[in-house]
Amino acid sequence: MSSPLRLGIAGLGTVGIGVVKIVQKHADLLAKRTGRPVEITAVTARDRLKNRDADLSAYRWEDDAMAVATADDVDLYIELIGGEDGIAKDSIEAALRAGKDVVTANKALLAVHGQELAELAESLGRVIRFEAAVAGGIPVIKAMTESLAGNQIQRVMGVMNGTCNYILTRMESAGLPYEAVFEEARQLGYLEADPTLDVGGIDASHKLAILSSIAFGTKVNFGAVEIEGIERISIDDIRRAADMGYRIKLLGVSQMTARGLEQRMSPCLVPDDSPLGQLVGGTNMVVVEGDQVGQIVLRGAGAGEGPTASAIMSDIVEIARDVRMPVFGQPADQLTEAQTARTAVPAAYYIRLELQDKPGALAKVAAILGEAGISIDRMRQYGHHDDNSVPVLVVTHKTTPDAIDHAIETLPKTGVLVSDPVELRIEEV
Amino acid sequence: MSSPLRLGIAGLGTVGIGVVKIVQKHADLLAKRTGRPVEITAVTARDRLKNRDADLSAYRWEDDAMAVATADDVDLYIELIGGEDGIAKDSIEAALRAGKDVVTANKALLAVHGQELAELAESLGRVIRFEAAVAGGIPVIKAMTESLAGNQIQRVMGVMNGTCNYILTRMESAGLPYEAVFEEARQLGYLEADPTLDVGGIDASHKLAILSSIAFGTKVNFGAVEIEGIERISIDDIRRAADMGYRIKLLGVSQMTARGLEQRMSPCLVPDDSPLGQLVGGTNMVVVEGDQVGQIVLRGAGAGEGPTASAIMSDIVEIARDVRMPVFGQPADQLTEAQTARTAVPAAYYIRLELQDKPGALAKVAAILGEAGISIDRMRQYGHHDDNSVPVLVVTHKTTPDAIDHAIETLPKTGVLVSDPVELRIEEV
Repeated sequence: MSSPLRLGIAGLGTVGIGVVKIVQKHADLLAKRTGRPVEITAVTARDRLKNRDADLSAYRWEDDAMAVATADDVDLYIELIGGEDGIAKDSIEAALRAGKDVVTANKALLAVHGQELAELAESLGRVIRFEAAVAGGIPVIKAMTESLAGNQIQRVMGVMNGTCNYILTRMESAGLPYEAVFEEARQLGYLEADPTLDVGGIDASHKLAILSSIAFGTKVNFGAVEIEGIERISIDDIRRAADMGYRIKLLGVSQMTARGLEQRMSPCLVPDDSPLGQLVGGTNMVVVEGDQVGQIVLRGAGAGEGPTASAIMSDIVEIARDVRMPVFGQPADQLTEAQTARTAVPAAYYIRLELQDKPGALAKVAAILGEAGISIDRMRQYGHHDDNSVPVLVVTHKTTPDAIDHAIETLPKTGVLVSDPVELRIEEV
Repeated sequence: MSSPLRLGIAGLGTVGIGVVKIVQKHADLLAKRTGRPVEITAVTARDRLKNRDADLSAYRWEDDAMAVATADDVDLYIELIGGEDGIAKDSIEAALRAGKDVVTANKALLAVHGQELAELAESLGRVIRFEAAVAGGIPVIKAMTESLAGNQIQRVMGVMNGTCNYILTRMESAGLPYEAVFEEARQLGYLEADPTLDVGGIDASHKLAILSSIAFGTKVNFGAVEIEGIERISIDDIRRAADMGYRIKLLGVSQMTARGLEQRMSPCLVPDDSPLGQLVGGTNMVVVEGDQVGQIVLRGAGAGEGPTASAIMSDIVEIARDVRMPVFGQPADQLTEAQTARTAVPAAYYIRLELQDKPGALAKVAAILGEAGISIDRMRQYGHHDDNSVPVLVVTHKTTPDAIDHAIETLPKTGVLVSDPVELRIEEV
């Protein structure tokens, strides 16, 4: 049996403790599968005295992450601190410079500084692995960098923030408004300290930016993601969408087009009987489309101790087996700078309107849509509300985002709208 | 850039030609992703003169597979001949002995001789990869050997024969009997030359046996799979199951229990709104349950030129990157001989009966079930048929296969059955 792989872990929250538990529980299994013992030598976290659900007494406690990252008896530095800058980044750089490989679950860091870190790692002959950074326990990074390496990737889509999906499915099942379910989620501890990371779509966009880089061989460009969160989704939209056979999901889509790379994270309608439409609660799903393989769908838990630690163990096992690969699947210095394209791929759209209950209102709306070149697939007028407004739902045929934007801007000028129109893209899945 | 990886391909059917096309079309992509050119040097197939959908003029034609397998200018031998013995096996052994790595899509060979071949490869320091052997384009071998390596696997399930799933879903959607859809499938070219490989569940069982080995670290044991095909599934069963909220799938299940390893391939009921229940046509799905990750679902095309070739390219890329791993995820000489267990994990069952339309018939059935210790979850009696028989459907609570076997044996003795009872397991998914 070869020499042990010695781990140093910085960050002992849910995920870090999950890793400790697996290393302890599955020591034999890991040794069998990697051909060498996998051991923890040093750990650190913000608060040494915090009560943790694992026995850490066999490991050296270091007072800071830098000490773990650079310790002589650490081969592999596991960064579970989080944050796109600061000690997370500094300690990873220090570890690489000290000749360590790195495993991290830090999507924010990779989305913002991934290119720089990949270049540093590769110049030093080290690897950074990050299976846990995207979609928790789902092996999407490995699938894309390795399993689908014979494909030109055409599109990547995913529901990658379990909290948002929990909120949206709970709104539908309980018939509760956004604010009430948001508060529930907060009380259940599902939200990040800064909840806009979740409901604002930022966390999911970090993940999408990472997937885009691997899919298209481009430098990770989080700044280019068009981001919209789920805050404006009302229970009305959820119900109306359901009437039409759709569910609303916070969906990330990354797609290379002739005009450049489109990356968007936004609430979309998907058919309720599609795999994405069927997704409930905190489960994640990633859909990858390759020119050879067609559509591959991967589904699993997107967060939680076991699933996230499982993904980190996958990286640890890989390094224990001495599998070494460029960070984003091809050398960082060969990744290209993608032209950023605003979303232009045509799609059907859902438009919800509240019209004044008077003759000619619907005709004015139809005229505006017609002038914008938008043709209507289905239109449904509901009984009027107490305030005499009339809900109208339009599902368009495929049209361009520009045409929709134009229509949405023009519609209020008809003078027949009671409130701002709501438009949502119906993503083809 | 490193030296080229030189491929020799034996077998130029759909899949072989698919590999040729990808190597030609994605030469740049492959070089970027592996850091070296991937080239084909030698090919062979049964019939040189057959018209093929690819330009093979740049490759040396060899008259037999042995010549490709052992050629000096071949680094990686790709066996796409098929068959569990004969030239497929001989040429792989010759390639290993000649210092080549091997990629194969040959599930029958691996299911029957996998242990022997793995031992040979590992004793020679060579690798055999076989992502394409199970579930076509779905990266399940990599997911299990690598991504889930930090898990004790608890159960593996899958719909892994697209032809059977096509037949079952087509029977439901078109309301056609088994024989008619079987004939359709034959005319569409969906069936193997020996169709019992498909509809008899053998092909899918080959795949299950391979997955079991990886999941549980046991020697592949195809002979221990309890196999039942879809031949006895009637349109009646499909309709009645649908009434109760289920779909019938040819489902493979591999599960380690205290009594040993259960491997079964049989038509089962699954909830129609579960991911497995939603699967239509030739799509495959594999569900893996690990103690850490929970349930991971992988879905994609199970066959076809592009998807299968994509899986083979994944193996080729891995070898081009010099990733080397034991064949079944841990050294072959450490794989254990699993105790074979007949299915004993309790489950709910579906029982369809045709009773004589006379008083007391149902009471006699209920009595038999009660005596066998089987309690009834739901029972439904339908209007009588033209022959005055009465269809009765029973969904049981969880019970043991032994109890069901006993009841099914005893029921005809009541003298109230018009035909043999049909029982199907309702697998918990």
